[in-house]
Amino acid sequence: MIELTRRSALAGAAMTTMAAAGGGLAPEWARAAAAPAAAQAPGFYRYKVGSIEITVITDGANRLPVTDEFVLNAKKEEVNAALAEAFMEPGVFVGPYNPIVINTGAKLALVDTGTGEAAYKASKGQTGQFLANLAAAGIDANAIDTVIISHYHGDHINGLLKADNSLTFPNAEILVPAAEHAYWTNESEMSRAATKRIADNFKNVQRVISGEVLKRLRTYEADKEVISGVTAVSTPGHTPGHTSHVVASGNAKVYVQADVTHAPFLFVRHPGWHAFYDHEPVQAEATRRKVYDMLAAERMRVQGFHYPFPAIAHIEKTATGYRELPVAWSPVI
Amino acid sequence: MIELTRRSALAGAAMTTMAAAGGGLAPEWARAAAAPAAAQAPGFYRYKVGSIEITVITDGANRLPVTDEFVLNAKKEEVNAALAEAFMEPGVFVGPYNPIVINTGAKLALVDTGTGEAAYKASKGQTGQFLANLAAAGIDANAIDTVIISHYHGDHINGLLKADNSLTFPNAEILVPAAEHAYWTNESEMSRAATKRIADNFKNVQRVISGEVLKRLRTYEADKEVISGVTAVSTPGHTPGHTSHVVASGNAKVYVQADVTHAPFLFVRHPGWHAFYDHEPVQAEATRRKVYDMLAAERMRVQGFHYPFPAIAHIEKTATGYRELPVAWSPVI
Repeated sequence: MIELTRRSALAGAAMTTMAAAGGGLAPEWARAAAAPAAAQAPGFYRYKVGSIEITVITDGANRLPVTDEFVLNAKKEEVNAALAEAFMEPGVFVGPYNPIVINTGAKLALVDTGTGEAAYKASKGQTGQFLANLAAAGIDANAIDTVIISHYHGDHINGLLKADNSLTFPNAEILVPAAEHAYWTNESEMSRAATKRIADNFKNVQRVISGEVLKRLRTYEADKEVISGVTAVSTPGHTPGHTSHVVASGNAKVYVQADVTHAPFLFVRHPGWHAFYDHEPVQAEATRRKVYDMLAAERMRVQGFHYPFPAIAHIEKTATGYRELPVAWSPVI
Repeated sequence: MIELTRRSALAGAAMTTMAAAGGGLAPEWARAAAAPAAAQAPGFYRYKVGSIEITVITDGANRLPVTDEFVLNAKKEEVNAALAEAFMEPGVFVGPYNPIVINTGAKLALVDTGTGEAAYKASKGQTGQFLANLAAAGIDANAIDTVIISHYHGDHINGLLKADNSLTFPNAEILVPAAEHAYWTNESEMSRAATKRIADNFKNVQRVISGEVLKRLRTYEADKEVISGVTAVSTPGHTPGHTSHVVASGNAKVYVQADVTHAPFLFVRHPGWHAFYDHEPVQAEATRRKVYDMLAAERMRVQGFHYPFPAIAHIEKTATGYRELPVAWSPVI
């Protein structure tokens, strides 16, 4: 108690000193505040699936105005109401991009590439962040030995090329879904493109899937291991050959869904909504419901390319659809 | 079409080459995978509240076994059922610690300190991560000019001292809630401590709130600005003088709740549960319901010391309590 008494007396003395300094004057040891950092933390996050190490690397997020054409079977007002329910800014769809690196111990594989180095400048830093975040994660692009592509949309393949059109991953084999490759390299399909957006995508595929990329390219089939520990699953609709991947090791699994849904706060909660970028919306919805029923029933983690970083969640079924529960960030792996 | 044809032919050639390499053999450019990184990303995250910049700095997370004594008015089985609903590991309560740095432009203030440098070794790196993550965020501990304390539990004050008992923030004024300081430095309150845990906390306060800390200490009152832009709000129950803080700039606000709830996946969803560490559980519950009704009604962001990093969420009211919706990680600030 003597100790406590002495301490209390000291406390009183300290407060008297402070009061004497008083009148809002800063004490002598106070300094002017630092300049704002004005830069976000590097966007990478690691977790294990059994003995496999996954590193999520964000490429940034795009901002898209919400129009009546954004969801084909829902009005702008309904979409904005859903954004409000999710506490997101109304009128703007913020769409994140999250490629992942899978270290199996035998392979260092990247699943999807993000929007590409050139996008960084074009978007004023909103997207095209992948290479900076990959470097922050201590991963050398030259060490990536496998790139696994889910489908041939630009935000998944454009990162195969750097801004100068050289290979981003010069030592990587590029594994692509056979059905997806067949569709987007088929001349008669190209001539039948239903919309300008699809025609433009054919052109972008021509641009990216060519030259050195093509030399390193190999197609893979669904229901088989793409690399040991990573199995391809056919999830068509978003594109004709759209493919997801199950990473498994021991008893652990994660479902790497690519674009089975886009951002969850709209399209997991409203699985019946047809986003403008789904190639075959009815098939996409059927795939979505089948996958999400399975995720909810099996309590399987999902890694969503367009989920907010770090883009890992569990799924629960609701009266009207599904709901994502982001996995709690673990400060250790 | 000529371009496409040539490209298709090249694709064919590439696949033939791959087939020839076949039999599962790696192509010549493939390499052995890198060693696993086995380390988590630095745990810091930035966002703005009007012109104020906040940096959340994680101190790590503690793992506590779930016993019948963990929640006073719920059985272990009920707690484990709630953990299962939140897709958390059963039998283990993972409790994160997330101090924040507030850069107002005039002040560089830290709200709560985490478990302290000594905890890093003692916990084998699970906690005590604050200083490493602060450095990763580019913030010099010597540049912190103000430390604002919410209450006198060890995970909020122990970080005032380094492992060698020197000051962690030697240039900071230490601002503490007057009611909290009065309670924990009152000898007769100490003699009446109802449990060993509370008696131990009195001793820990004696250890930490002494010497050089006491010389830099000043008390503050509720309902007043602690520093410009940061207003103290009395939220008693968790401890007698437990205090929260509202950070406001322009039209933007965030409610920095300290321990109004502990981890949301249990105590936001079950606001009636009395955790063993609430000093006055009935008062703590009343405070919790009042604050969370307000957060839901005003759609105000909450920064929760014990929320999973980065520990920012919105709150919705449910039939049985509340639910937290983590704010989507923004790759830019």
